[in-house]
Amino acid sequence: MTDTPPRPRGRRPGREDTRAVIKAAALKLFSSVGYDKVSLRSIAREADVDPALIHHYFESKAELFARTVLDLPMDAEAIVERILAGPRNEIGANAIREFLDAWDSPGGARERFTAMLRSAVTDDTGRRPMSEYLSKEIFAPVAEALGHPNAKIRAQLAVSLILGLSLTRYILKLPGMAGAKHSQLVEYAGPAMQHYLVDSW
Amino acid sequence: MTDTPPRPRGRRPGREDTRAVIKAAALKLFSSVGYDKVSLRSIAREADVDPALIHHYFESKAELFARTVLDLPMDAEAIVERILAGPRNEIGANAIREFLDAWDSPGGARERFTAMLRSAVTDDTGRRPMSEYLSKEIFAPVAEALGHPNAKIRAQLAVSLILGLSLTRYILKLPGMAGAKHSQLVEYAGPAMQHYLVDSW
Repeated sequence: MTDTPPRPRGRRPGREDTRAVIKAAALKLFSSVGYDKVSLRSIAREADVDPALIHHYFESKAELFARTVLDLPMDAEAIVERILAGPRNEIGANAIREFLDAWDSPGGARERFTAMLRSAVTDDTGRRPMSEYLSKEIFAPVAEALGHPNAKIRAQLAVSLILGLSLTRYILKLPGMAGAKHSQLVEYAGPAMQHYLVDSW
Repeated sequence: MTDTPPRPRGRRPGREDTRAVIKAAALKLFSSVGYDKVSLRSIAREADVDPALIHHYFESKAELFARTVLDLPMDAEAIVERILAGPRNEIGANAIREFLDAWDSPGGARERFTAMLRSAVTDDTGRRPMSEYLSKEIFAPVAEALGHPNAKIRAQLAVSLILGLSLTRYILKLPGMAGAKHSQLVEYAGPAMQHYLVDSW
């Protein structure tokens, strides 16, 4: 732990302070390095806390990413479970629906997501925390659960599909894409996602 | 025609000057207004030339767009024909291959294309000349030729697929997407494009 200067009211660093210090360190590393190359250990080092303490406050790197970068209580494992629930031929549609719900719900991730997409597109430093997070924590686990040996490329294709949809719907606002209802987009894009994540190839 | 000031060598405006004036006017309008809302008539007005003169130099609005904004002798009608040539079940794959060839060939459109994508993403003024051009001149004609009444939304979905692929391959450089061969990407993404452009729905 660093020596903290004496505080005016004499309060000692508490639960919330430690959480905040960890979150600030995580946000800094995810933003500057990406998702894949950041470890909980490197976040602990950046925050100057014991790695065990991070596990005390956060379940996983994925949760820490969602709480800091996305600023949402997004639970990647629960999303993967929901995508896989139900019949195999509905998995692609489930995946599209999960994202539309996450983007368009009140207090949803749309603003944050499009801001990250904008910065990734203009930045050109090879930082892509959002794409890496989606690929690693959501789409690759889905493809792996279905027994596909080529889960990595499937996950990256799924990311390309999701980025293309959000780009044309929320940023470029192509009339048909911006005006489509959730149920329509699920019907249109579900089979494309089904091909990437589920079909044999 | 505007009165041109006397030139040092006394040369009168010739073929190439008129072409250049038309191209400059077109580039300005496409960049500031988009593709759909620009007409050959408005370009003639901007260039201060007779509309018939534009037809003398350029076959169509699509050619003028390709020659100015894309800076390529890209022939949209020929691309549509090549996509539709051959068996119906290969149309999606043909479309993916056409774009990979256009992007990755020597002197190809990749730099120009990614620059336009970057500017569309950051601009946020609703200008999207590239998406409108691709939708109107390439994908909608393909879907219409196949007899689909919902060609517009199909074309916009095809644009979303193409933008997602180029974003993840050329800008974000996700390892699997950036490292894939043309034949692999055609195999992966062809069926998704086939669903958007060809399958019944």
